[in-house]
Amino acid sequence: MNEQHGYDVEDLTIGMSATYGKTVTDADIVLFAGVSGDINAVHTNQEFAATTAFGGRIAHGMLSASFISAALGNRLPGPGSIYLGQTLRFLAPVRPGDTVNATVTVKSIDLRRARVVLETVCRVGDTVVIDGEATIMTSSAARRLAKASSTS
Amino acid sequence: MNEQHGYDVEDLTIGMSATYGKTVTDADIVLFAGVSGDINAVHTNQEFAATTAFGGRIAHGMLSASFISAALGNRLPGPGSIYLGQTLRFLAPVRPGDTVNATVTVKSIDLRRARVVLETVCRVGDTVVIDGEATIMTSSAARRLAKASSTS
Repeated sequence: MNEQHGYDVEDLTIGMSATYGKTVTDADIVLFAGVSGDINAVHTNQEFAATTAFGGRIAHGMLSASFISAALGNRLPGPGSIYLGQTLRFLAPVRPGDTVNATVTVKSIDLRRARVVLETVCRVGDTVVIDGEATIMTSSAARRLAKASSTS
Repeated sequence: MNEQHGYDVEDLTIGMSATYGKTVTDADIVLFAGVSGDINAVHTNQEFAATTAFGGRIAHGMLSASFISAALGNRLPGPGSIYLGQTLRFLAPVRPGDTVNATVTVKSIDLRRARVVLETVCRVGDTVVIDGEATIMTSSAARRLAKASSTS
């Protein structure tokens, strides 16, 4: 653990997992439209969205993807993480009222470079709505120790 | 163009480009923290963030990434786009007050499947802060025509 209660790279093992769940409300969609600038009618106009293949409004894909960022930054590896990359496949729509569970699972660890790849999956119930991979640079106990002894 | 003024796949050519620019304010970072649930101290705690390699608060990577979604959904291909995938490399930090320009450029077109891949780059001034690729399903004039004649 680092001083912010995040995992050091040395603490991690393949298969470690954490989940962050959030219910997507109309308020989330409205706020996300304002913050992102993405005012696509399929997110904000019920009458129009009802005429599409989705049959009604859907949440922004990047809104659900942001829950992955929360799972990574708050839980695993947690505070101290630096986000280097993310791949996303948007597989199914998320609708107002749906609860999205973003699960991140350690897939590979590069101890020397303090880098870790995590599988990132968002589900609504049993349906996978997003899958992909995150690449994170974590803190390192070995680096902290090396730094402390070089400055003492 | 489709009925929502978005581009059909037949309208697109390699190299077509559009940009959406937005200034990232403290309000954006606070709202994004609330909507995403990502309350990492590097985004929300100036005293802590000042002690990190960044030297102060930075915006969430996914906040800047959401401007790509706006450029795609509002401009190119625009309304009617269905977001299938996105890759992101976070290359440099974005700070409160920075203006992020998200530029999307058509890279390849699959007419038959109405799919298009776009290069997606976010810049602050001349610095690339995010790069990656988006995969989009667009509307198709040919499909509309086929549907109209099959139901007439």
